[in-house]
Amino acid sequence: MKKIINPQLKDWSELSKRPQLNQTDLTDLILNVFQDVQENGDRALKKFTKEFDQCELTEIAVSKKEFAASENLIRDDLKKAIQLAKANIEAFHLSQQTEKQIIETQPGVECWRESRGIENVGLYIPGGSAPLFSTILMLAIPAKIAGCKNIVLCTPPNSQGQIDPAILYTAKLTGVTSVFKTGGSQAIAAMAFGTESIPKVNKIFGPGNQYVTKAKELAQQFGIAIDMPAGPSEVLIVADDSSIPEFVAADLLSQAEHGPDSQVILLSTSEFMSDNILNELDAQLNELPRKEIAKKALWNSKTIILNDISQCIAFSNLYAPEHLILAFDNAEDYIPSITNAGSVFIGNYSCESAGDYASGTNHTLPTNGFAKNYSGVSLDSFVKKITFQKLTAEGINSIGPSIELMAEAEQLIAHKNAVTVRLNYLNS
Amino acid sequence: MKKIINPQLKDWSELSKRPQLNQTDLTDLILNVFQDVQENGDRALKKFTKEFDQCELTEIAVSKKEFAASENLIRDDLKKAIQLAKANIEAFHLSQQTEKQIIETQPGVECWRESRGIENVGLYIPGGSAPLFSTILMLAIPAKIAGCKNIVLCTPPNSQGQIDPAILYTAKLTGVTSVFKTGGSQAIAAMAFGTESIPKVNKIFGPGNQYVTKAKELAQQFGIAIDMPAGPSEVLIVADDSSIPEFVAADLLSQAEHGPDSQVILLSTSEFMSDNILNELDAQLNELPRKEIAKKALWNSKTIILNDISQCIAFSNLYAPEHLILAFDNAEDYIPSITNAGSVFIGNYSCESAGDYASGTNHTLPTNGFAKNYSGVSLDSFVKKITFQKLTAEGINSIGPSIELMAEAEQLIAHKNAVTVRLNYLNS
Repeated sequence: MKKIINPQLKDWSELSKRPQLNQTDLTDLILNVFQDVQENGDRALKKFTKEFDQCELTEIAVSKKEFAASENLIRDDLKKAIQLAKANIEAFHLSQQTEKQIIETQPGVECWRESRGIENVGLYIPGGSAPLFSTILMLAIPAKIAGCKNIVLCTPPNSQGQIDPAILYTAKLTGVTSVFKTGGSQAIAAMAFGTESIPKVNKIFGPGNQYVTKAKELAQQFGIAIDMPAGPSEVLIVADDSSIPEFVAADLLSQAEHGPDSQVILLSTSEFMSDNILNELDAQLNELPRKEIAKKALWNSKTIILNDISQCIAFSNLYAPEHLILAFDNAEDYIPSITNAGSVFIGNYSCESAGDYASGTNHTLPTNGFAKNYSGVSLDSFVKKITFQKLTAEGINSIGPSIELMAEAEQLIAHKNAVTVRLNYLNS
Repeated sequence: MKKIINPQLKDWSELSKRPQLNQTDLTDLILNVFQDVQENGDRALKKFTKEFDQCELTEIAVSKKEFAASENLIRDDLKKAIQLAKANIEAFHLSQQTEKQIIETQPGVECWRESRGIENVGLYIPGGSAPLFSTILMLAIPAKIAGCKNIVLCTPPNSQGQIDPAILYTAKLTGVTSVFKTGGSQAIAAMAFGTESIPKVNKIFGPGNQYVTKAKELAQQFGIAIDMPAGPSEVLIVADDSSIPEFVAADLLSQAEHGPDSQVILLSTSEFMSDNILNELDAQLNELPRKEIAKKALWNSKTIILNDISQCIAFSNLYAPEHLILAFDNAEDYIPSITNAGSVFIGNYSCESAGDYASGTNHTLPTNGFAKNYSGVSLDSFVKKITFQKLTAEGINSIGPSIELMAEAEQLIAHKNAVTVRLNYLNS
């Protein structure tokens, strides 16, 4: 990790920048996949699955038998852990429901909002060495609470055409409607256009590699909504002399192991503490199975020494981290000054892993500085809020003349007339 | 208007489609404007303003003097009308604030959300023959309630370099921070990148022509959020024998006058009523200053006769209208069955004009079927909701073992270790 001591304010902006990713433009490649899936449906999906996942599928949908079998392939203690996480995530997302609240803005003018679940939602779960079942909890639980009718999940199969039992177990537990064995940008295309097997959805959620990310971005051009734009995962930790080096080091590493492009920032008011943390980090790093990945991520990472906690928060607001850990005593005092962050972890016992898995908060969060303009996934992400209004005769009499004046000033005479015909009817 | 009687269910999907817009691909054109503004800042803006608005500007920002002068150029009754609308819009959007609610998902595990205003927001208000000050009310009022720090407004000047006084009056009244004389895609570029005069913003709101719409879409590739994707404005009205033909005709026309591509759909359970409405529409149409525009819009529009109100609602859900008017008695009974709509107007006295100007609801709504996956603009559009969590020693002891199991199953050992170091510390 690069160490920077008391940088000048004018350099903060540069220090808060993410490294430029060396991205090739995948647009044409992905648009070809989209066209293929749009034209050839399941046949295209099977072709891509053979090419990328080395697997010849007969059925794309996971069968009831496969779901049933997955139950017996998971250890009971893991099942219980998943159930505990589900209960907490459910409790927190249930609390995000809003009651209908009718506002009478003028006598006889009632306005209110009602939430409706987005009818069809698609969840993407990446493949690879480990089954990311925790992301299913984070997406399917709020989708279910929102009342989404169809919750479709796509994930790539292994070369035997199987999906990890933890994925299937969690999908069934959380009420996912159907799981399909397809990954990559072709899975996004399938959910955007629909195929013989996979229904078209209205909104697509979930993480993925650069192909999946680009495909989600391009799906928007075809009228599909997405959860949020994506970038590498990141954490910013603020430490002072009250921090516990072992904890902070472990938290930095839990971010660094995500991928070589993960961003890890340590802000400290004490160089002594930050040196302690980095020593501890070196010791813990060597024990990790994913140490080579973590090392690469740390190579891009920074430790910055600042004067006081207020400066650290100011820098953090400029950086707008996905995860912000305030790893010091009396961290609560600084909550009001936090303006840009995805999710905030208060004090020494609130590790990022808690929010990643089981505390109840959502782990699908804005990266890459998007915490300046986006919220993380919540119940809101799965609903539309429809506005309603009901005017009585008294209501239109009361606000009608103002509407007439404003419509006339905007030269929209038919808008004015819609009021005039009603006022004439009532007052003739 | 084209009349369709009792179409078969299999034809509904085709009937609910919007006409394909004949759009040329503006991407390259807009990206050139973006590059020019990024490189040359204010100089580029002045060049474009000269080219497109036939106006040589010395200052891009509206001066205090210009704001002050605008006050005297507006009639008092219009001022009062705008103030009434402001009060209602404020009341409704204030009701959308949510109180902080701490959820203890397990003993010692507290989770909650807090809202923070998006720091810098940009509002675009189109130019043209009429000053669309009502859109300022709809965007600046919730921005102010949200606590946005900088509320920037761009709108094109007339050839004398002036902004309509109703725009300036409303901007000042609603707390807009600064108004800039620049329009078109160059205004979107200015807010996306910042120039010497115009600050860079985090999110851009507001309507516009195809250049502005495309520019907003492309701005997302540079990390700027936008309110929602856009298409032509539209209304769907449901009528039966209890409707008042004069009212329904006026409402259809108030949508049709927006532009030649406006969408107007009338669903009726009674052919007799729909014929009455269309006769009344012909009579009212001839009195309108914008009758040529309205005629073109009506040319693309449809009247569909269906069996009963439930069928009408089912069709409406498939169409997902921006505005839905239930122009019949007992309309409330059908609210639970509405799943896709931007804003709904209940009964004979709730005309769309009310929501467009003064009832309190927002008029920035999802068009083009986007009501299936997007909400209209609300207070939510101007805030980020940050999640917070605080675990005590009891909290991490309670959920820690479950996190360890789940992290291990996902092969993220550093994630597991962040918990293990804490459990060891507490229990040694």
